[in-house]
Amino acid sequence: MMQRVCFLLKVRADRLDEYRERHAAVWPEMLDALSANGWHNYSLFLREDGLLVGYLETEDFAAAQAGMASAGINARWQAEMAPFFEALDGARPDEAMKPLTEVFHLA
Amino acid sequence: MMQRVCFLLKVRADRLDEYRERHAAVWPEMLDALSANGWHNYSLFLREDGLLVGYLETEDFAAAQAGMASAGINARWQAEMAPFFEALDGARPDEAMKPLTEVFHLA
Repeated sequence: MMQRVCFLLKVRADRLDEYRERHAAVWPEMLDALSANGWHNYSLFLREDGLLVGYLETEDFAAAQAGMASAGINARWQAEMAPFFEALDGARPDEAMKPLTEVFHLA
Repeated sequence: MMQRVCFLLKVRADRLDEYRERHAAVWPEMLDALSANGWHNYSLFLREDGLLVGYLETEDFAAAQAGMASAGINARWQAEMAPFFEALDGARPDEAMKPLTEVFHLA
């Protein structure tokens, strides 16, 4: 049984091109860590103004987040990504992922 | 081969509860029409301020939209949904679905 998770973040308007480039070449070790921690069918969508939508499917999002929070490769990735985002108030991007409420689903 | 599609709309802040209720009881004929026109794994997520995120998988989003545009049940559903949304500028909600760009995917 999978949870469907959606979260929003805001990429700085002056860093969009570099953000796209980095996400076309995510470190293989980062991809492996995501998969190993249950992040499946994971997409990021970017609106032209920098609004970023994340979507993933996982058995348990709290466990998926906790697993990544303890992964060294993720700490290095999130440290490099943090400057791309607006207003995280000191949190890492992955700590700022607040799931929205799913109000409809059709298989 | 499936396209992953993400779009955003804005539900009026004073209609959120009713929007949720309607989407907990979408007409069966509307669900059938979506499935028949290739809308798969279709979710709607609602942020507390009314920002609505749609996510679906389909073989061809243009064809999936065109199929629904010609479905009578969809015309009736969209007419009932239009007052829930902000600033559609005369378009039906389904006509205002502009896909965001996917910048990352991990299967």
